[in-house]
Amino acid sequence: MQGPFKSVSLPWVLLIFIVVFHVEALKPHLLGRRSVARTSSQHRSVSYKTLYFDQQIDHFGFLEDGMFKQKYLVNDQHWHKNNGPILFYTGNEGDITWFCNNTGFMWDIAEELGAMLVFAEHRYYGESMPFKNESYSNAKYLNYLTSEQALADFAVLIKSLKTSLPGAQNSPVIAIGGSYGGMLAAWLRMKYPHVVIGALAASAPIWQFTDMVPCGDFYKIVSQDFANSGINCSKNIRRSWTAINSMSSTAEGLQWLSQEFGLCSPLQEEDINDFKAWLQETWVNLAMVDYPYEANFLQYLPRWPVKVVCTYLQFDTDVSDKQLLHGISQAVRVYYNYTGSAACLNVSETATGSLGIRGWFYQSCTEMVMPMCTDGFQDMFEPMAWNFQAFSDECYALFGVRPREDWAGTVYGGKNISAHSNIIFSNGGLDPWMSGGVTKSVSDSLVAILIPDGAHHLDLRFKNEDDPQSVVFARKLEVKYLKQWIKQNAGAQ
Amino acid sequence: MQGPFKSVSLPWVLLIFIVVFHVEALKPHLLGRRSVARTSSQHRSVSYKTLYFDQQIDHFGFLEDGMFKQKYLVNDQHWHKNNGPILFYTGNEGDITWFCNNTGFMWDIAEELGAMLVFAEHRYYGESMPFKNESYSNAKYLNYLTSEQALADFAVLIKSLKTSLPGAQNSPVIAIGGSYGGMLAAWLRMKYPHVVIGALAASAPIWQFTDMVPCGDFYKIVSQDFANSGINCSKNIRRSWTAINSMSSTAEGLQWLSQEFGLCSPLQEEDINDFKAWLQETWVNLAMVDYPYEANFLQYLPRWPVKVVCTYLQFDTDVSDKQLLHGISQAVRVYYNYTGSAACLNVSETATGSLGIRGWFYQSCTEMVMPMCTDGFQDMFEPMAWNFQAFSDECYALFGVRPREDWAGTVYGGKNISAHSNIIFSNGGLDPWMSGGVTKSVSDSLVAILIPDGAHHLDLRFKNEDDPQSVVFARKLEVKYLKQWIKQNAGAQ
Repeated sequence: MQGPFKSVSLPWVLLIFIVVFHVEALKPHLLGRRSVARTSSQHRSVSYKTLYFDQQIDHFGFLEDGMFKQKYLVNDQHWHKNNGPILFYTGNEGDITWFCNNTGFMWDIAEELGAMLVFAEHRYYGESMPFKNESYSNAKYLNYLTSEQALADFAVLIKSLKTSLPGAQNSPVIAIGGSYGGMLAAWLRMKYPHVVIGALAASAPIWQFTDMVPCGDFYKIVSQDFANSGINCSKNIRRSWTAINSMSSTAEGLQWLSQEFGLCSPLQEEDINDFKAWLQETWVNLAMVDYPYEANFLQYLPRWPVKVVCTYLQFDTDVSDKQLLHGISQAVRVYYNYTGSAACLNVSETATGSLGIRGWFYQSCTEMVMPMCTDGFQDMFEPMAWNFQAFSDECYALFGVRPREDWAGTVYGGKNISAHSNIIFSNGGLDPWMSGGVTKSVSDSLVAILIPDGAHHLDLRFKNEDDPQSVVFARKLEVKYLKQWIKQNAGAQ
Repeated sequence: MQGPFKSVSLPWVLLIFIVVFHVEALKPHLLGRRSVARTSSQHRSVSYKTLYFDQQIDHFGFLEDGMFKQKYLVNDQHWHKNNGPILFYTGNEGDITWFCNNTGFMWDIAEELGAMLVFAEHRYYGESMPFKNESYSNAKYLNYLTSEQALADFAVLIKSLKTSLPGAQNSPVIAIGGSYGGMLAAWLRMKYPHVVIGALAASAPIWQFTDMVPCGDFYKIVSQDFANSGINCSKNIRRSWTAINSMSSTAEGLQWLSQEFGLCSPLQEEDINDFKAWLQETWVNLAMVDYPYEANFLQYLPRWPVKVVCTYLQFDTDVSDKQLLHGISQAVRVYYNYTGSAACLNVSETATGSLGIRGWFYQSCTEMVMPMCTDGFQDMFEPMAWNFQAFSDECYALFGVRPREDWAGTVYGGKNISAHSNIIFSNGGLDPWMSGGVTKSVSDSLVAILIPDGAHHLDLRFKNEDDPQSVVFARKLEVKYLKQWIKQNAGAQ
């Protein structure tokens, strides 16, 4: 099953492109393992106990009765032991320590709320492997990698914590998560409202599913970010695809491209789709992490990195292909080599089969089918229609399973979520994932908070002196709601 | 796997007794197949289309990608085709035609509401077999028999109906069910509030789980029904167990018992636990169907059958064992031979492995763990403590699976359901299952309706001139809430 990720034969390149194309923007979360050390050394230090909880491998069937160790992190330094609240991070597709280190908001507000912090790892990521090293070895073992199983893990863990921790019996629990973790936080409140009194779902694209939002919105937002960050910036990126196609049509051009981009391995003709996918992913990632200060979420980057990138792409749109692609290569280096320590750039880096990537690929190939498309007019990318059947066929070839296009909408309610309560949906105006987010309040207690200057879940990061006012205000509002839920809960008991 | 149900060796008698003891009172629903013909001929005739829907065998995993045919019945005679409401019966553990014929309330109100009626069969019952004739053949095939899968079936079917039926796109759907079907109706609203705008959960013991209600309440209610229906009635039943123990200690006594009760097979010493379980089940069933008019829900019975039974048990409590047991045998015949057509009584009848019984046994042995106990003081039965470990061991021996005692509470919220809305919980004061029901309103939209003179979901039956005022009033209130939800929904669109 690993083969396809490494193969470079033509069919697989196409396959990788399709899969990458449609899930690429979530991949940054999967790079957690590599980022933890650098990330944690950069921010205020956080300290926690690392614990493991015995979970059912299958919550929804009784034949598979095995258990596995779910990793979770706990800090109770500021916890008011007499039923003080618990802020519970619903871990997403990666190592939980990475999310723990990158969710400074919870650390910043723990004292004010007298809260315990818990970060729970998502099954099949980090150390939480249902079948240990074999977890990804076949479709049978992968069968328990679903969001429903993950939510059940969280619910069971929370119930156990409240029973076993002295003083926690009546502690109100609030789910907090970002991106896919934000979707899980919202869904945990929807499906287990007896377990969490509310949820903060940051940059959670719960509507990025079939027939809920236009498939092109995601890449439109990416393109707007670049268009707004420098003259001709998005136009030159749009032009670059033709220039690459043209350049790569000769052996000489391929050699020039390899040298210009300082690639670790020289480009072959059949690598061009990968190369373009890698560039496209780079622009997406930059839009996602367009933070107002130096940060190391995906890569170590300057403040407002898209602006910095665009300084290399401000030339007129009639320069030669080589001039244009020289600008692109300089721009890309902002992302991959801001520190100057990269000896060469690795085109296949974000497409290789690290565990996390495989996990998210599997989830995309089952429940998390997120249609994406581009048209080359409203966005700066090569046109690519959404083709569910082709996607399904690739998934079947990869994992032996087929995605169920409508299931996420059926199980989680799609756009009809008004029966629920106590969920904050926060979204950043610069974040491509806003395309699938809840950006208008649905009711008094299903509240949308917009952060116009915010990239991907900026609000969940540690506070910073360079934070725009919009995120300062958003966090204040979020804390206000958290306190309100806690107070309501106390009144109801 | 079938063996145990038929074996009469001592360990299995004990096993059957334990399993029967704890689930017996739900078994009547399992007798549906036998009752359909008589039931439907008795009541107003109902007419419907019989349809089949392709369902996923496994909604919560992607490895098993097979489909099965779910049976459902539809009547749209009174439906207002422009988004008129759909009343959706969430089928429980038996043939759906039987529930259809025994849920006259839906037929009675269809015209007033301009409603379509849909009755959906529960997977693994009736004709809705995921693996056809093999569905019960091993633990692997049984693995998809859970309430979560059944709820997902209902949600998927409803979404499909609304898409495929012209005029139904904005039809508000209301879930209706009785007993386990009532639990499913309530849970469908809790878990899929985007699919059903509300639920009528009649006689639904959603709290009959570990640590939610005292395990002895169920049998206390049974006993009260008999105590209130005739002088010395429950006292003489309480005395009968000792009399049977004493009588069965000799071969002559066994022969006398067999003749006195007109049993089809003479009792052996090792049958005595079965015999007592059969009697106990008879009293439970009588309490459940203590309806105010002649009815044929489980058996063809006179009006107020418990009162009729008690006319045979009014003698002083110091009569001889033989006199006492003669009274018991007369009383039992009210249940088994009111029509006079039974040639003999079959002690093993309700304990043999009909498909439905096996299905409910499996559900009891996995999710639906409902602790029951007796003490012989507050109830009229032999003392029997609840022993989860013994129960679990028996389940493992029977099915190769072990029950998860806490799961139902974790997944469905236990007593903390206040975050939900639009559910009516109706309960009858004569119904033993009231022990696990919601008998006090939780909020303005989680409403409890009590029917003091009602047995098991009397409110769901066809209206009858002998209906007590309490059920007439309850049904009016139920219709009022249904209309209110429909109106609210129309206002929200």
